[in-house]
Parts: sequence; structure tokens; C-alpha cells
Amino acid sequence: MRVKRYSENPLVEPQADRPSVEGWEVVCSFNPGVVEFDGETLLLLRVAERPPRGNSDKVLVPVMDCACDPPRLEVLEFSLQDEGICLDDPRLVCFHNELYLTSISHLRLARSTDGRNFRVDQQPTLYPDQPYEAYGLEEPRITKLGDTYYVVYKGVASTGITQCLATTRDFVSWEKHGIIFCPENMDGILFPEKIRGKYAALHRPQPKMIGTPNMWVAYSDDLIHWGEHRFLLGCSEGTWEGGRIGGGAVPFLTDHGWLEIYHAATPEDHYCLGAALLDRDYPEKLLAKSAEPILSPEAPYEVNGFKHNVVFTCGAVVRGDVVSVYYGAGDRVTAGADLSVSEIVDGLEEIVTGV
Amino acid sequence: MRVKRYSENPLVEPQADRPSVEGWEVVCSFNPGVVEFDGETLLLLRVAERPPRGNSDKVLVPVMDCACDPPRLEVLEFSLQDEGICLDDPRLVCFHNELYLTSISHLRLARSTDGRNFRVDQQPTLYPDQPYEAYGLEEPRITKLGDTYYVVYKGVASTGITQCLATTRDFVSWEKHGIIFCPENMDGILFPEKIRGKYAALHRPQPKMIGTPNMWVAYSDDLIHWGEHRFLLGCSEGTWEGGRIGGGAVPFLTDHGWLEIYHAATPEDHYCLGAALLDRDYPEKLLAKSAEPILSPEAPYEVNGFKHNVVFTCGAVVRGDVVSVYYGAGDRVTAGADLSVSEIVDGLEEIVTGV
Repeated sequence: MRVKRYSENPLVEPQADRPSVEGWEVVCSFNPGVVEFDGETLLLLRVAERPPRGNSDKVLVPVMDCACDPPRLEVLEFSLQDEGICLDDPRLVCFHNELYLTSISHLRLARSTDGRNFRVDQQPTLYPDQPYEAYGLEEPRITKLGDTYYVVYKGVASTGITQCLATTRDFVSWEKHGIIFCPENMDGILFPEKIRGKYAALHRPQPKMIGTPNMWVAYSDDLIHWGEHRFLLGCSEGTWEGGRIGGGAVPFLTDHGWLEIYHAATPEDHYCLGAALLDRDYPEKLLAKSAEPILSPEAPYEVNGFKHNVVFTCGAVVRGDVVSVYYGAGDRVTAGADLSVSEIVDGLEEIVTGV
Repeated sequence: MRVKRYSENPLVEPQADRPSVEGWEVVCSFNPGVVEFDGETLLLLRVAERPPRGNSDKVLVPVMDCACDPPRLEVLEFSLQDEGICLDDPRLVCFHNELYLTSISHLRLARSTDGRNFRVDQQPTLYPDQPYEAYGLEEPRITKLGDTYYVVYKGVASTGITQCLATTRDFVSWEKHGIIFCPENMDGILFPEKIRGKYAALHRPQPKMIGTPNMWVAYSDDLIHWGEHRFLLGCSEGTWEGGRIGGGAVPFLTDHGWLEIYHAATPEDHYCLGAALLDRDYPEKLLAKSAEPILSPEAPYEVNGFKHNVVFTCGAVVRGDVVSVYYGAGDRVTAGADLSVSEIVDGLEEIVTGV
């Protein structure tokens, strides 16, 4: 697979972003949804920020207290001396079996006329202010349906990780519509047109007892209420997609069906991108998929980062045979790369039988 | 709390049930949904059965192979000598981090004219035949809406634990409607009337990373597609509801709001029943709840069983001030008890602030 990484990479780095709170630090600016709007390429970035580190005996956890009106940012402190603390993952604080995040994320627009040089807005676009967003908003995917742009994003709170919906027509006024996929769910993505008369989505439930983090398809009449859940694609033990698998970019139509550029990771969290071809009318029917990754962490900003060896996409722009994939790299920065749609499709392995 | 356990308890025992496969053994006949129909009290039991134990070096796992037409029961064998096997929980086989069940369940009707003496049907009522039911059907809750009886039940398969819907008008002809709550979800229960013009349900997502197994409310226009997910009630660390909490019986209206008899368990799986009062128009608003259990494992068939110290309800019948709670006991048999609605309500502690 020929991957043409942009020479401008990383396209967005956290140090360029102004924090939403004076004195705080933006640590990651990544995993953007992407859309073409009004002659520009818009990225809707996940901007993760944290309070300054003071006392080195403490770890700080920023959370939005949504019981206040208006909601108020608070900083929880956990003692590093406490035996119940675990900081193995740089993104997480595990305190007596309860998970917290070391940063809180909001969503923020960046704009470009050439798809490579971006100006990041000074202010947040979508900010945590709902109880289900108390730990932040993450991983937005933007789908245009009619004249409205629908953003499905991860809402994180002590009550769970959910998939939430927000809409805009102009990227100025926004409306939040609440939780569309209940805990624990990630990687919700709307298809860009109705399928057999219904809206369709990819989503990725994360089960505790039985099953692995797998991709599912669901349907809706109104984009708010979802059902007809169908299993789509699961992990493959011992492979590059042995640990988890989830939707990536908004699927787009090819002559052969829907092409979905997804992510998968090993149990050790080595994240790659793959591609799957889904039946046009029954997207829960997997027609073909990449046996090997189409994009793996190789560049320094992918191999090293806030979390090493991560490429993770929330959106792409398709122009003819070129798909421009925007992706988070190293869980820290945003990068872009061009791939050939026909080369991706030609490289897929046909799936003979479903699960 | 005065709990009048029936002198006929256990009302149903597994040894009375004919297995669906000749030579197999019914090990549990429990956790029934309940409804009054045509002058009778109907229980829709979860009947768990397993193949005869042969070679003592093996543990057997019955599964339905739904790739066949018609679906075919198969028996997987796991070697007890394998280092990757764990049998700590009598209900489960954990084999190299993948969970299987030691029995497969279907749903089966039992009938009574007095609510205490039940005749169990000779044949299954709802049998696993869908891919999402490959490990069985469990924990049905029956709600009447109009002239139709809606059964929400747990569908278990390698792809996850889901909440599924089936309907009947006569308890003879049935229709299955697929998955209404995606993995991992348990304790789905429909409210018996529309609330502010919409169908409503309790459900209990089981998250892996963030959050505990908590009760949520969701809404629907058509009973198939669900959204507007709202957190309702969570676990309380260090109490009788420290490990998990989930809906039990179908909620019923009192003068004070919806009364929900739910279950909760400690992290050590000591299961009790509690009660919660929910706002009539906004059932995600918790008005009051029991500080202590209203029913705890005390009787021998509750304390000892396939799994010890379990009482778990999927349904109750209300007549005036008496609520007849039917419940699984010891994860093995079915029992019943009468409680006073007013005594339950009077014993609740008011909730001053929400979460």
C-alpha cells in the first residue's frame, strides 16, 4: 500500500493550541472529525488539556461538575502514595478500581484552504456541559445529511463512556441531542445517506463479560433512537486486530459497496488502520477486508507520542481515487496521508462466509 | 419488612422439567417473567439444561450453531487439564479469557390458577435459533401494551450479551424482533404504559472501563429503536448494592410514582431485592429508594443453590396493596412471596438530590 504522508505532518500540534483555561496545558490535539465546508477543510479536533502540575506527590484529574449552574471545572487530587493508585496508562488514573482521565477534552475547529495547513480556533467549539460529558468529549465523526452536519462523539463521565450526537448547519450554532448509544460504546459513525429508507450507523460496544470490542451496525428512523443492532466485524486473536476493532472514517460509497477505513489494535495497544468493504444495502454484511493494515505507525510522530504506536482516524476526504485520511498520531498530534481508493479495494481479501 | 414467602416454595424445581433434548438434564428453572392471562398466572421460566457429563476430564459447553439451517445444538468440550481453564463460577467456563456457559437456557411457560401451584409445559416456548441467542435466552420480563405481550429477554452469544424483544398475543404464536439494546446489556424491562407519549424502558448496561453496572432509562417511539438514554441509579460501594444493580419486576404505578422492585448484589454476588420510586412523568428521576433490602436470601432454597445467596426477580403481580413477587432463588428454583406495597413505599428513603 502506497501511503503518501503529508510533508507538513504533523498538521496540528498541541503546543499551538490555546488552552480553554488560562494557565492550563494542551497536551494532545488529535483524532479530528473532518468535513469540507464553505470552501475549506474543517477539522473538529479533540483537544485534551490539563491543569499545571503542582505538588509532585499528587496526580490531578480535571472534571466538569455539571451539578453546578453553570457547570464548573474542578480538579480532583489523588495521592501518589496511595496504594490503590495505578498510572500504567498515561491517559488514565486508576484509583481503587475506578478509572479517571488525566486530561479533559473538548472539541475545537481548525480550518484550512489546502487541507494541509490548518489554523486552530482560539476557542472551544463543543465544550463539556452535560452530565454525560463530565470527563470530556472525544473522537468526533462528522456526517452531512441534507443541509445538516451531524457529529457523533464520545461523551465520558463516571456513569460511563457513551456515544452522543450534536448538530450544526453552519459550524457556529450547535445543538446537543444527548446519548444515542449507551455505555460502554465508542466509535459511533453515521453513514452519509439512508440505507433502505433508514439512517444507519457503525458503533463499537465494549463488553465486559462476553465478547470482544467489535464493530456493529444499527439503524434509526430519526437519528436519535437506534435499534436493529447487527454484528459486523470482530477481533482476530493473534493478529494486528487482536485486541480491539472499531470504525474510523465516515464510510463512503464505491462501485463495490461502502468502504470503511477502520482502526484495530493488538492487546498491547499497537493501533493500525485497515479497510473493510460493506454491502451497499446491508452494510452489516462484510464483503471484503484488508488482511494487513493499510496504515501502520512508522513516522516518528506516530511511533512516539503521548501513547506510542498509535494511528487512529475519525475522518477522511475523498476526491476521485484519492482518499485523504486525517488521523491522530501517537495520541498527541494530527497528521494526514493520501491513499488510493482503488489500491485499497484491490488489496482487500474477499470474505467468503459471515460469522 | 414483612415478607410472606409461599408455603409451596419452591414453586418450580428443575427436576420437574422435561429437558428439550432427550438424555439432557435441566439444572435450573428460575427467573421467570410473570403475567396474568386468561384467568391464569403464567410464568415464563428460564430453563437451563446441559448434556450428560461423560468423561470427567472434560467440561461440556452446549451452544446453538445458528449457521446451520435449521440451527443445531452442539456441545463444545474443554479439557480440565488445560492451564487456561477456570471454573470458579458454576455458571461459567472461562477458557483462555473467553467466557462460555455451562448450560444453555430457553424460555418455557408454567401455568397456575392460584398463583402458587404451577404446571410446567412439556415443550420450550422460546428456543435459541438466532445468532445472538447461540448461548441461550435468559431473564424474560413480560409487559402488556394494548393487546400485545412484549417479552424483553437476554440473548447470549459469543458476540455479546444483549437485550432482545419477542411478542405474542396469545402465548402460542410468537414473533422475535431482534436486539433492542446492544452489548453488554441486561435487565431490559418495558414500562406498562407510554410516558409523555413515548414507550420507556429500564436497562442495565455493563461497562468495562468506566462506570459500574447501573440502571438506566431509555425511550422509544416504536419499541424497536431506543434512545434518550438517562442514568437512573447506580451502585453504592460498601453496601448491599456495591457490586451491581439492575431492574427486576415490571414497574407499576402507585399514587407516588412508579414502584420498581429491583435487584442488587455485592461484589461477592450476594443478591437481594430493593425498591425504588421513580417520577411518574420522568422515571429517570429517582424519588426514593430502600436503604436496606426488602427481600434477602434467608430460606434454604435461597441460601443454597446452583449459586448460593441469590434472590432475583423478573416479575410480580399486583392486586390492591399486595405485590406477589416471583423470583429465582439460589439461581436454581422459582419461589414466590407477598409483600405490602404501602409498607414498601413507607419504608423508602427520600432522595434529596439526583446525581
